[in-house]
Formats: sequence, C-alpha cells, structure tokens
Amino acid sequence: MADAPKANAVVSQSGGPTGVINASLVGVIEQVHKQPNIRNLYGAVHAVSGIVKEDFIDLKKIPAGTLELVAASPSSALGSSRDKPDKAYCEKILGVFKKHDIRYFFYIGGNDSANTCFIINNMARDAGYELRAFHVPKTIDNDLLVTDHCPGFGTAAKFVACAVMGDDLDNRALPGVKVDVIMGRHAGFLTAASALGRQRGDDGPHLVYVPERKISMEKFLADVEAVYKKLNRCVIAVSEGISAPDGKTWAEKLAETAEKDAHGNVQLSGTGALADFLAGEIKAKLKIKRVRADTFGYLQRSFAGLQSEVDKAEARQCGIEAVKLSSTAANGSVAMKRIGTAKYGVEYFRTELANVAEKTKSLAAEYINTEGNGITAAFVDYALPLTGGLPKTEYLGNYPRIKI
Amino acid sequence: MADAPKANAVVSQSGGPTGVINASLVGVIEQVHKQPNIRNLYGAVHAVSGIVKEDFIDLKKIPAGTLELVAASPSSALGSSRDKPDKAYCEKILGVFKKHDIRYFFYIGGNDSANTCFIINNMARDAGYELRAFHVPKTIDNDLLVTDHCPGFGTAAKFVACAVMGDDLDNRALPGVKVDVIMGRHAGFLTAASALGRQRGDDGPHLVYVPERKISMEKFLADVEAVYKKLNRCVIAVSEGISAPDGKTWAEKLAETAEKDAHGNVQLSGTGALADFLAGEIKAKLKIKRVRADTFGYLQRSFAGLQSEVDKAEARQCGIEAVKLSSTAANGSVAMKRIGTAKYGVEYFRTELANVAEKTKSLAAEYINTEGNGITAAFVDYALPLTGGLPKTEYLGNYPRIKI
Repeated sequence: MADAPKANAVVSQSGGPTGVINASLVGVIEQVHKQPNIRNLYGAVHAVSGIVKEDFIDLKKIPAGTLELVAASPSSALGSSRDKPDKAYCEKILGVFKKHDIRYFFYIGGNDSANTCFIINNMARDAGYELRAFHVPKTIDNDLLVTDHCPGFGTAAKFVACAVMGDDLDNRALPGVKVDVIMGRHAGFLTAASALGRQRGDDGPHLVYVPERKISMEKFLADVEAVYKKLNRCVIAVSEGISAPDGKTWAEKLAETAEKDAHGNVQLSGTGALADFLAGEIKAKLKIKRVRADTFGYLQRSFAGLQSEVDKAEARQCGIEAVKLSSTAANGSVAMKRIGTAKYGVEYFRTELANVAEKTKSLAAEYINTEGNGITAAFVDYALPLTGGLPKTEYLGNYPRIKI
Repeated sequence: MADAPKANAVVSQSGGPTGVINASLVGVIEQVHKQPNIRNLYGAVHAVSGIVKEDFIDLKKIPAGTLELVAASPSSALGSSRDKPDKAYCEKILGVFKKHDIRYFFYIGGNDSANTCFIINNMARDAGYELRAFHVPKTIDNDLLVTDHCPGFGTAAKFVACAVMGDDLDNRALPGVKVDVIMGRHAGFLTAASALGRQRGDDGPHLVYVPERKISMEKFLADVEAVYKKLNRCVIAVSEGISAPDGKTWAEKLAETAEKDAHGNVQLSGTGALADFLAGEIKAKLKIKRVRADTFGYLQRSFAGLQSEVDKAEARQCGIEAVKLSSTAANGSVAMKRIGTAKYGVEYFRTELANVAEKTKSLAAEYINTEGNGITAAFVDYALPLTGGLPKTEYLGNYPRIKI
C-alpha cells in the first residue's frame, strides 16, 4: 500500500435523508481537520449531481459551532439526489476528480451509494488514477449487509417507537382499532421497532406485519378480530411493503397509477391509501365502529430534535472511521460489530465495497414470531439499545377499582 | 358563600387526549392531598361513562413516583369518552354524586366538558344539592374562549413545528412539493404552528392554509406554482378543515361516506384522502414531478416523550387551581392570562362555565396574512413561548460555493 497521497477530498450525501446522516458528515469533516494529507474538503451539493456540476462548498471553513448544529439537524445538510450514475455519469465524476486532484471520496448513503463508490473506484484503478473511495453507511431501513446495524435506523426506530407508544395510550383512552403504516419496502426493521416501547402486558402494537411474511386479507382480519375480542381494542403496525400470498404488495394492488423512482422502486410513501384501505376493510368486514389509520410518512426520517444519542454518536464515528481508513486502505465501507454482552457497544471495521453494494438484508427469522404477526424478544434485545432508550409511561385505567 | 363542604370528589378526563392532559390530572391529585376538606378523590374511568357505571380508581392511593410518570405520559390516563351527556345522562351522574356524597367535580376537557359541568352544576343547584363543579381546560386546537391559550396546544404545536422543520430540511435535500395536512377542523392554531420553527428566510412552510380563510383550487395551485418557480420547491401546511369558497370543506367534498362522531363533527382524521387529493391536483395541473403528502394524524396529540415543558407546567397548574378555587367558589372554569412583556408568564383566574361551554375561538385576523396563505409575526410572538422553545437546525446547501 502506497503512502496516503497529499490531495483533495470530496464528501457528499445520497438517497433518502435520515436523522443522523449529518452527524456522519460532521464526523468526516472533523477527522479531515486532523489529517494533513487531505488538503481541501469539498462538499458536493446534491450528491453526485453536485460533483459533475462542480457545485462545491469549502467544508474546512465551516466553524465548529455550526458543525454541531449540523450534526444535530435531520436531513442531508449538503442536499441529496436520487440519481443512480451509469458508466458515462461515473466517468464525468472521475473527470472532475482528476481535474481538481481529488483523490479521496467519502460517500454517505445506502447500498446504491456503496455501488457508486465501487464503480468509480474500479474506473480510477483501470485508468491508473489513485483514488480512495469510502462508503459511510446510512439508511433508516437498516437493510445494509455486513454491519450489525446501520446509522439512521436507531433514530427512526426511536420515532416509530415513541409514536406507537403514544398511539397505544390514545387507543386505550378511546378504544377501537388503529392501523399505523410504517416505512420499509423490503425490510421490516422499522415496522418491528414499533414494539420497542411496550411496557405492560397488554400494550400495543398487538399485531405487527413486516414485508418478510406474506399476509392474506383473511388472516389479517382474523388476527384483528381475535385481539379486538380479547382487549376491546387493537393497535396494528403494518409495513408499507407488506405483500399478499400472490407475491404482490398490498400497496401495488391498490395503486392505480404507480409512480416509480429512478431506482425502479414503486413509490409507496406519501400516500395514505394503504392505511385507509386496511381501515376500510376492518370496518366493513368486522363491523367495528371506531377504526382509525395513520401513515407515518416522512416524519420517520426527518423529525427535528429527536435523535437517538447512540445513533448520533455512531453515525459520527462512522464518518471519522472512513477518513481514518483512507490513510491506510484504498477503498472500503465502514461497518459496525456489536461487542460486549453486559453493556452495549460497537467496534468499527472496514469491509469491501462489493460486500455492501446493491445488496439488502431482511429481518432475521428469529425476530419474527411463528404466526408472522408479531416480533420476538430477540428483536427487542437487538434493537432497543440503538434507540438510546425510550420514555417510560403510565396508564391508570388498568389499576384496581375501588368499591364505594 | 358557604364553607367548603367536607365531602368526596370525582375527577375525570374527556374528549380527545392531549400530550399534557395527564399533567392536569396530576395537578388535581396533588392539590387534593393538600385540602383536607376533600375526603376521597375518585378517578372516573372513561369520563362520564365511568361515573354512571361507578367505575372508580382511588387516586389518593397512587404513589408520587407513579404520578410523575403519569404527568409525563401522553393521552388520558383515566381513559376518555366521546359521550355527550343529555339531561337523563346528567341526572344519572347527579344520582351517583348524591349516593356517594360527592360534592366536588373536576372535569378536564374542552368546551363540551365545560358544558357538562354547567348542566350538572345547575341541576344540582335546582335539586338543592351542594356541588362544586370545575372545568379544567384542555385541547390541542386552542379554541376555547376566555383563556389566552389552552393546555395541550403548546405540546401539539411543538410536535407540528418540529415535524415541519424536519420536513422542510428534507424538502431542501430532495426538492419538490410537500403537502402536510394538520389537525384542526375549525380553528387554524395548530396548522399555523407549522411556521414556528422557521429560521432562514427561505424556510418552509412557504404556504399555510387555515380553516378561517376559504381557498379555491385555482388560488391554491397559483400559490404553489409561484413558490415553486421561485425556490424550485414548496412546503405547504394545510388544515384538515380548509374549505372552498362555496363553504364546503375540501375534505367533505372528497368524503364518499362521511363518518360522524357523537358531536356531529365529520370525521376527518385518520384518513390520507385530503393530502393525497391535493398532491394529485398539484402533480396533474402543475406538471411537477416530485410531489409528496403526509397527514400528521393522531401523532400530533399522542406522541410519547415530546411535551412542551411550558405547556406541561401550565396544565398541571390549571389542575391545581381548579382544586384551590373549589374551596372558595361554587363552580367555574380555569383560565390563563398572559402577563409580563420581557419574559413570558401567565396568571390563572376563574371564569364562568357559561363563558366557555359550547363556544369556540378562531385564529385572530391579525395572525393571518392578507393573502390568506400564511401567518404573521404576531402569531409567532403569541405561540412560540407555548412550545417551550424549538431546536435549532443548520442547512449547508445555502452556503457560498467555492470556485476551484
């Protein structure tokens, strides 16, 4: 391995924002200040599209106080993009890198971003241009391979857990059936997080449906009816990506005009159709009067002022580690390994870009109950530490009655 | 005024839960402990329906530590009810009061609850039964008369403001049009709260529509187009209760099967139809590609762990004041008056039940801009202190670019 070149660096943020992707950005910036081999750090505005347009911010000039506000802010402070660069696009990027002696590329994003790093890194190698490309993981879906979990998930999980905790208390006060539709096209981690705040034996969510298990309308309604008969109420967490036994998602079945993003994913967020459909089915078929539905939508990834402190610290450290690795390795993706049993902790390591690029992880079978309508204690053990802790609540309606 | 009778008391919570209605309950309980004339404090489970069923919890037995958890929890810890008692129902309530020597009634709720207090109080007086009925205000809509503002609003306003702050940052990262539908059938306070977190000149929400101003689809689309042309993006806060120039709400126009609650209100929450409709119109008529919509739904009133500390403290004090007043007055509703100019503060006073019962307040004209599509600085001055403060954020995409 040659010595780390004295050259410039680019950092940018890609894909859907998260609550802590800015903490990773700040981690990159603070570590760059400590590594004199990196001369300038250019922040590309709106990800790869900013690179090809040479739309850069001089990130070494941002004061430390501002950086702390950036790290505390949701969404991508440099702007994002849904562009999925093809070969020609990547060649343009490499052209800009060559033009400005940019030999370090830190890309904060999901598996598509890891793939972009991989492609550009290979292109540079083939062209004999030394480029060190590093992927910093982020996603609220928690679906990246290799890493134990992904920065962004803990904060989104905290939001979802707090939302459903409150929703369950609301449903106790005014009983009925409540359907909550939660983000996650293919992986059920975030929907499963709805159960992390359960404290009492009869706390909701009482039913949890994830994309990893197909569900028929008959089974869904039978589940709801059984809970409702027992508790006189029912809180249901449903992933936007749940599918029917025929393999089609329930949202696809509903969507009259399916909008697709540049990655070919059907657009499910930003619509209340699935939630309203499920509520309508319950009302019509089970003759239950009070049925309500909410779709949590973009609040799950962008709510201001509600970071998981654990997630924030890890996201920042992932940014720091990427820059550190760049002085000894030619490329890679930062990953986390869980350490310790008594006390939660992680250690950081490098994995190959190809191990992360374009691949996704699903909820492990051990995290889903055998009926496919709930999650297990093993999932709570896995995910609860990532939220940084959840508030405690009390409900008096279960307390013993007085005979007067 | 006769001396305060030595007798029992009932407290309960009515209508839609809020984030701090439990703080009011705890205020009542803690003050009852200090007033020996109140022998027992019975918590009626599920409001008036719990009174007629004599479904009571002995609230003096609840440990102090538990009470603090109750005060920190969203939703109604005693359960709630949408029952609107008629004369026969109120006679049953009075019968239970007489049977158990209950001469104090503390009812935490909105204008319907104030009316129930009023009716039962008059009934008792006519029957020659000494009863002291007090209303403790709560509503996320902030639409009660007399009081400067209402416990429950500040916390809901904080949620809405934080949601739209994050949403606006998200919309900067991935530009397009975003529609957020916010609770409030007749009063626009909560929708107006979407603007409380604005920090930068081009921060969203860029358009705010409240029920107090009618809006045609043509004007709505023209507004959106104008903002989009200027900023290449647009964040819009819309009340669920916005209406068209013909006087019908936009939601009514959409609702195929309007569900009504016991108070005759059309059910608008729990459905994404209005948001999806508005997004569809923008997409179709303005040919804008990226249009998203969220309906904030029940999270606005029930999210766990996100109280406004100011709101929580005031809600608790309103409960305390109701019990204090009961030793010197025959009935009343607790209200707040804003004091001080340099530093925000309130004082508490008694108003007649009839002043609050069944009446509602709307956003003052001075809080809405002349175009009817935004809110004024006067509203921010009024409402921001009630949130207890909002997080600061940073976005780098506006920073000057480097020429390299």
